[in-house]
Amino acid sequence: MTSAPAVPPARAYRRLGVEERRAQLLGAALTLFAHRAPDDVSIDEVAAEAGVSRPLVYRYFPGGRQQLYEAALGSAAEQLTLCFAEPAVGPPTERVSRVLDRYLGFVDQHDAGFSALLRGGSVAETSRTSTIVDGVRRSAAEQILLHLGRAGGPGQEPAGPRLRMMVRTWIAAVEAASLIWLDEGKQPAPSELRDWLVDHLIALLTVTAASDEETASVVADLLPQETADGPAGRLAALIIPVVDRAAHLLPPA
Amino acid sequence: MTSAPAVPPARAYRRLGVEERRAQLLGAALTLFAHRAPDDVSIDEVAAEAGVSRPLVYRYFPGGRQQLYEAALGSAAEQLTLCFAEPAVGPPTERVSRVLDRYLGFVDQHDAGFSALLRGGSVAETSRTSTIVDGVRRSAAEQILLHLGRAGGPGQEPAGPRLRMMVRTWIAAVEAASLIWLDEGKQPAPSELRDWLVDHLIALLTVTAASDEETASVVADLLPQETADGPAGRLAALIIPVVDRAAHLLPPA
Repeated sequence: MTSAPAVPPARAYRRLGVEERRAQLLGAALTLFAHRAPDDVSIDEVAAEAGVSRPLVYRYFPGGRQQLYEAALGSAAEQLTLCFAEPAVGPPTERVSRVLDRYLGFVDQHDAGFSALLRGGSVAETSRTSTIVDGVRRSAAEQILLHLGRAGGPGQEPAGPRLRMMVRTWIAAVEAASLIWLDEGKQPAPSELRDWLVDHLIALLTVTAASDEETASVVADLLPQETADGPAGRLAALIIPVVDRAAHLLPPA
Repeated sequence: MTSAPAVPPARAYRRLGVEERRAQLLGAALTLFAHRAPDDVSIDEVAAEAGVSRPLVYRYFPGGRQQLYEAALGSAAEQLTLCFAEPAVGPPTERVSRVLDRYLGFVDQHDAGFSALLRGGSVAETSRTSTIVDGVRRSAAEQILLHLGRAGGPGQEPAGPRLRMMVRTWIAAVEAASLIWLDEGKQPAPSELRDWLVDHLIALLTVTAASDEETASVVADLLPQETADGPAGRLAALIIPVVDRAAHLLPPA
């Protein structure tokens, strides 16, 4: 500070810059919104959580709780989107496993808020909050398509409608499974849920490849990258006794 | 009528009884809500659609648009729940195909309203509308569990947590696929989408059976009911060339 302030700095919080203060308030809001539905969180509580005054919260978020909620949601959406980033190296099912580990960590950390947001029925939800959530889903789909080699960027063809529907459908299934997982007191263990969600993706790719040429070509490119001791190999070994019972469904050899 | 009305019956609609009138107003509301978001439909339009006066609509629905929307939603939820009922006879994948045909018919008929409701972000959505939608999802899950032989009613064991999560996850996937289908101008043909959704359920059952004993036992009971020329047989034949490429993932024979 280069000159004495007109009013003595009564509290330590006066020292923060605008961006730091904003980040601090968002952090406090996220902590509260993570464990309670948005309608149950007041500006007074956010102020108390951040250790600042109510007017200070309003100075940064003149729109009050709704504006704060949308800003906190935007910030959580950015964090979540970062979870999806995974280098396109190694067996694809292992990459997806790592993404799911980070995703489930996020769900675990933001449990009640995650649940309230996706369940709907809160007055804090608007077309703006829906747009934020849809943006996260779109970015998740793009990341998965990237690992399938069909993201449409440099060096990749864009995915056709069936493959795109498959990926978006799987993402909806992951979201639904996460909500059920929260409802069931976070059972089973996250690693078990993760493995099942990877199995789900492998299953969906396999049956979609059965009826869609593009997906068949994607699967043909992915399979040589998989190993017997990775997720795809583990599933392949476990599935043999199940499909052995389906011999009567096959055409005569 | 036993006595002359105080005011002459200016319109034919005076002749309807209370229940019939209510049903007529709900029908008019459903027609409008089917093709537009709830926030875009006014009471005046519902009155015009039903050929009645605005005050008459308010006499039946004093809570105005919100009450009418919730009542119309409840009525649509009943219709949709009826779609799920299917006798437990014949190959299970064929039963599920018939349920999906009726479900996709409902989605087709209520397109924009279905989409607006499930997408969220409308002020007409409340915890009451969420409860109605959740009730439909629960009833869909119960019907699927019935065909899997694990509905928990007379003569059936209740499903364990993994199988229940699997069914609810598939239902979320069906819902997501329906919304994408509406977004894409109802492409592909409903029968093609239906077949893919059945394939999805078969795939999910198969991989879940790989890691969950109860699901393995359900699949073992279902498979003998399936035929080579039904949905499961069609998928089995198409999948052989896909899994043939996965030989390197299997443990040495």
